[in-house]
Amino acid sequence: MSNVAVNTINSLNPPNPQSSIQEERAKNAFDPSMHEFIEGGEQKSDLILDLYQSLERDPVLQSNFKDYDLSTHANRLQTTERINRMTRYKEQEVDSEFFRRLNLVTVYDPSLGIRISVNLGLFGNCIKGNGTDSQYKYWCIDKESHNMKHLWGCFGMTELGHGSNVAGCETTATFDEKTDEFIINTPHIGATKWWIGGAAHSATHSVVYARLIVKGKDYGVKTFIVPLRDSNHELLPGVSIGDIGAKMGREGVDNGWIQFSKVRIPRFFMLQKFCKVDRDGKVSLPPLEQLSYISLLGGRVAMATDSYRICARFITIALRYSVGRLQFKKNLKDLTECQLIDYNLHQKRLLPYLALTYALALGTDRLENQHSKVLEDLDHAIESKDMDAIKQGLNETKSLFIDSGSLKSTLTWLAADCIAETRQSCGGHGYSSYNGFGKSYDDWVVQCTWEGDNNVLAMSAGKSIIKNVNDILNKNKKIDGSLKFLNNSVSNSNNEIILGKEDELNDPVIILKSLESLISRISIHCLEALKTNNSDWDSISHERVILSKLRCHHYLLETFIQRLNSNKDEKLNQHLQNLVHLYCYSSIFNDFAGQFIAFNILAPKLKLLITSRLIGNTCSKLRPYVVALTDSFQQPDNLLHSAIGNYDGNIYENYFDVVNKTNPPNITKAPYSKNLEDFLNRDSLEVRQRFEKGEEVSKILSK
Amino acid sequence: MSNVAVNTINSLNPPNPQSSIQEERAKNAFDPSMHEFIEGGEQKSDLILDLYQSLERDPVLQSNFKDYDLSTHANRLQTTERINRMTRYKEQEVDSEFFRRLNLVTVYDPSLGIRISVNLGLFGNCIKGNGTDSQYKYWCIDKESHNMKHLWGCFGMTELGHGSNVAGCETTATFDEKTDEFIINTPHIGATKWWIGGAAHSATHSVVYARLIVKGKDYGVKTFIVPLRDSNHELLPGVSIGDIGAKMGREGVDNGWIQFSKVRIPRFFMLQKFCKVDRDGKVSLPPLEQLSYISLLGGRVAMATDSYRICARFITIALRYSVGRLQFKKNLKDLTECQLIDYNLHQKRLLPYLALTYALALGTDRLENQHSKVLEDLDHAIESKDMDAIKQGLNETKSLFIDSGSLKSTLTWLAADCIAETRQSCGGHGYSSYNGFGKSYDDWVVQCTWEGDNNVLAMSAGKSIIKNVNDILNKNKKIDGSLKFLNNSVSNSNNEIILGKEDELNDPVIILKSLESLISRISIHCLEALKTNNSDWDSISHERVILSKLRCHHYLLETFIQRLNSNKDEKLNQHLQNLVHLYCYSSIFNDFAGQFIAFNILAPKLKLLITSRLIGNTCSKLRPYVVALTDSFQQPDNLLHSAIGNYDGNIYENYFDVVNKTNPPNITKAPYSKNLEDFLNRDSLEVRQRFEKGEEVSKILSK
Repeated sequence: MSNVAVNTINSLNPPNPQSSIQEERAKNAFDPSMHEFIEGGEQKSDLILDLYQSLERDPVLQSNFKDYDLSTHANRLQTTERINRMTRYKEQEVDSEFFRRLNLVTVYDPSLGIRISVNLGLFGNCIKGNGTDSQYKYWCIDKESHNMKHLWGCFGMTELGHGSNVAGCETTATFDEKTDEFIINTPHIGATKWWIGGAAHSATHSVVYARLIVKGKDYGVKTFIVPLRDSNHELLPGVSIGDIGAKMGREGVDNGWIQFSKVRIPRFFMLQKFCKVDRDGKVSLPPLEQLSYISLLGGRVAMATDSYRICARFITIALRYSVGRLQFKKNLKDLTECQLIDYNLHQKRLLPYLALTYALALGTDRLENQHSKVLEDLDHAIESKDMDAIKQGLNETKSLFIDSGSLKSTLTWLAADCIAETRQSCGGHGYSSYNGFGKSYDDWVVQCTWEGDNNVLAMSAGKSIIKNVNDILNKNKKIDGSLKFLNNSVSNSNNEIILGKEDELNDPVIILKSLESLISRISIHCLEALKTNNSDWDSISHERVILSKLRCHHYLLETFIQRLNSNKDEKLNQHLQNLVHLYCYSSIFNDFAGQFIAFNILAPKLKLLITSRLIGNTCSKLRPYVVALTDSFQQPDNLLHSAIGNYDGNIYENYFDVVNKTNPPNITKAPYSKNLEDFLNRDSLEVRQRFEKGEEVSKILSK
Repeated sequence: MSNVAVNTINSLNPPNPQSSIQEERAKNAFDPSMHEFIEGGEQKSDLILDLYQSLERDPVLQSNFKDYDLSTHANRLQTTERINRMTRYKEQEVDSEFFRRLNLVTVYDPSLGIRISVNLGLFGNCIKGNGTDSQYKYWCIDKESHNMKHLWGCFGMTELGHGSNVAGCETTATFDEKTDEFIINTPHIGATKWWIGGAAHSATHSVVYARLIVKGKDYGVKTFIVPLRDSNHELLPGVSIGDIGAKMGREGVDNGWIQFSKVRIPRFFMLQKFCKVDRDGKVSLPPLEQLSYISLLGGRVAMATDSYRICARFITIALRYSVGRLQFKKNLKDLTECQLIDYNLHQKRLLPYLALTYALALGTDRLENQHSKVLEDLDHAIESKDMDAIKQGLNETKSLFIDSGSLKSTLTWLAADCIAETRQSCGGHGYSSYNGFGKSYDDWVVQCTWEGDNNVLAMSAGKSIIKNVNDILNKNKKIDGSLKFLNNSVSNSNNEIILGKEDELNDPVIILKSLESLISRISIHCLEALKTNNSDWDSISHERVILSKLRCHHYLLETFIQRLNSNKDEKLNQHLQNLVHLYCYSSIFNDFAGQFIAFNILAPKLKLLITSRLIGNTCSKLRPYVVALTDSFQQPDNLLHSAIGNYDGNIYENYFDVVNKTNPPNITKAPYSKNLEDFLNRDSLEVRQRFEKGEEVSKILSK
């Protein structure tokens, strides 16, 4: 297939991209220690490699290039079959293993990932977080919904008219004292539950966010379990459900809308860890209700990690392509065309994303660990009823709300940029479905909107930062947790320049310090604005979003420095040094140059130095290692799922082969060819007008 | 459908978004003069409104929400039917009308648009540009391909291994003296014609870019007409064609690959305006071959105009939504939720794109006129054989190459950003196909890659700018054409600050001057770099791209100022002033702040002023007019094709109605429901393991 005639002697030389990639790989490669460094340790690295192999071998879960041609119907059928397959692993794997599996399969099948995550993550965690132990045991363990069996749960939070403002939900849950039931009702179109993943076809039950109304009093939004379908999977009376229809991506997910018409549920279907209604309609609200949203944190942490893996996927594809692809001759002396990656601009477009991906790997590994620790500490504290420990746990939770909100929003945005830029860097071939970019972008970008709209999350994180700075500066407080660097705000608030000399740009510790100063100074600038405008937080929302982004970069850079300091492998360290430098120059200084200069932290002349020299120089240092540095992510072909991104680097043969297998060229006429032929061979206009407009007719009619 | 029970008395109040939009419209509206201003005149405005109506009424061409659910097959069938319909207009409309129709229908059906554009634009213009008059007359007029009849042409330029580097194409056209024929051949897989729009199913003929080989000598890439299918639409022998398969977007287009296996064509199938081969194989190359690429200009100009119209479409949708959508209460005193557009951040996210869209409208109208004039002047000059006029025409063409390259690349990028940001600004609803964003983004982004990759075009435009500055500074030349502002490079090259005081930011003329200075200073910086690195243009490619973007903004701002100065309507002017200010503050200063400061053109303290005050203040001034300013684009619902973007503003009812019509909720089980039910109701693990792992078996086996 590959040549016009293969295996003959006279053919001209076809391109040989695999030789470029393999030569570079032969020259520079890192042993497994780089993967262990990236993933945060040997154990996690080994687990991931085992899971990659398991997914690649699994006949149902393995990726197939035909996936890119599936209709919506076929896509949903396939997703269902893959869920089925995943249930078998769920029954027999420990959670840490299963959820890592889910995390990895999500990289190439995000529809599958989110369908399971909504059920086990949002539905299950909401019951765990908001229900009593008995409620959790009943719904999740005894009914085996934790194994994706008998029950399938969806998460009925957002409404057609209410997304980010959960507290504004208008679905009602009215207590009927006579029957000891809640009446769940959708009062009008705006309160229709909307976008509910799994509702259209799968879910048997929903967690429903609804206003608790008892004796005419509105207690605000609480959570209820409402059955949607019976054990024969028939829709229950009073429940109206429809498919939300076509979406930009995630076609494999059956998002639906739900309307409740006075649906009655027993009183104990309310999740009552934080709010209880007794038989007589007495409402009690125990403390710690603030923890009721903790079930949302897992999703945000996962999306931060997803950002790392999706960036790793596409930077691997794009860099392999850039090594194998030749284009133009650099000058007249060159005999052959130049590798794409040897163009200065191409390096500046891609290598910053490579550096960013390394920063993301380390930072999101830290966030995962932080999340596990918070949950563990809190469980332990609540179990032991130790009030100090509970208080400490609540503080840690607050930090995690800020950190996960800031990372989720910043990183899902950056990952969307990364997919878009890497796609463009592969030229036209980036637009082919078989190279993975289009579907992944379309599936990806909803991450910027759901489970906390990025701007809303970022504004909230930014507000917390400003409030903390206010507490430190104006209330003499010392803060704890992951924002404790803000305690330096007093010294950071002077107007001294931090980065004035070139060599200061070589030290990530000074750069971290400059980030801290910038965060403090912008916060102080915001506090001053608040003083003059009656504390109108809305007026500084743009600045709050910037603060959230900067806080994210502080988290990443801090982690990168810590991990570098504790790494003993000198051979790896030189490359990691280059990566952390490039990360700072591009993702931090290039993107926020205006702020750094405006707040007198970076000298303007250094900005010019960074763009015109430092970024380019650091790219050159990394250039020889692009294959080694991307191979180190260890993502197998099954996961990359991209014809031009395969490990073997045989770009054109692989791509052509996929195109031909999915579109057999022996079908030479389209099914709609007759329509085409008919109009191409149509009669002349005169014939079709029955010659009515000709001169002859004109003569007749004029008489 | 819209309420749980409609037309009853007791329902709670549903949201009423249409009242917000209609109240704002009642308060502020512009008469038709704004549309005339935007479109560049009454005549063009009237034509566009007529065409909007014609498209809306046409039963085949009108948009339908079911379009968003079409399978690839159905999409292609529909596109074919729409092409058929368009042929009837082509036969009876003058070109200026038909191509405006094509331009407008492309906004909501870009697959249809590009299928016709490849045939009439690329194929037809290539024959017109590269063929003799007789060749054009034969292929396009006599054979009626200009009416999309008998012949359907595709454009065989790019190859699997060669995109941007056309001169590197490897398909060969070898002259066979014995038979007076060319032999068209694909030597290996890399030379396979790839991405060819229309090739897979439609095209009867292709323009083929191939290396002319005569008597063993390679004369470089020339153009040939090669028949692909006979009059029965059967594939010709020696021609291999396949469907390129699934793509990120433009599913309605039958992109294909083509391989030629020594296909013979008569000698006169070579397009021979610029290159002739006589019967004996003597090759003559008349002058002006540089004009052979002029056929590509039309596409670039059209893509710049497309950028305006697509931005107008999505900013209209997003702003209507932002006016009708309520979210959160701003503070405890407010009784109702706040309109999205009244949030500071929301204004800062959307209104800069509104201002940009106005700048795009004016700038691309100028580019269209410039393009028509160049073609006219050149035709006239060549006809009259006036060498001075030809020289002048060539100079104008050069300017147009730079301007169209710079605008095509910058504006298609900005339009992609605009679609992405407006989508996100509509939250989850932006992700629904029925609101138009997803499909449009996917269809759009290929514009950044095809017919001149954006980075390649931008580098080329940037290079021309630097060379011009060099000519002016170091060769004492005066330049003419649209880059003549560079003649001020000497005075612009001093290091004086241009924008040091706040009031200077109120004057677009000073801002234009500051842009000129920045372009000159960056160019000089690049010339210095070239001196120290052996004229390595590659090393300054990043700067060249920035120069191209700045040149685009110079073009837009210059046009905006000229149009403002010549506009007599004072009522409109105050709003246009606000728009031009916001355009400068956001698209120019916000995006290029680092450069302006680094080259000492903008004082750092003014950067802070712009972001923290001027952008916000200008947004506030525009806020009351957002409905009027978007209504002025006059895009009808048929073209907006977005359930939440309709003129009536009845967001939720319209959206819910579309979802239900396309996904009837009375189908309560998915076709794949059995698969779901089967695994949900599966047997226990023990049963499925035949109890082999139980204690009893363990006892038996251990004996």
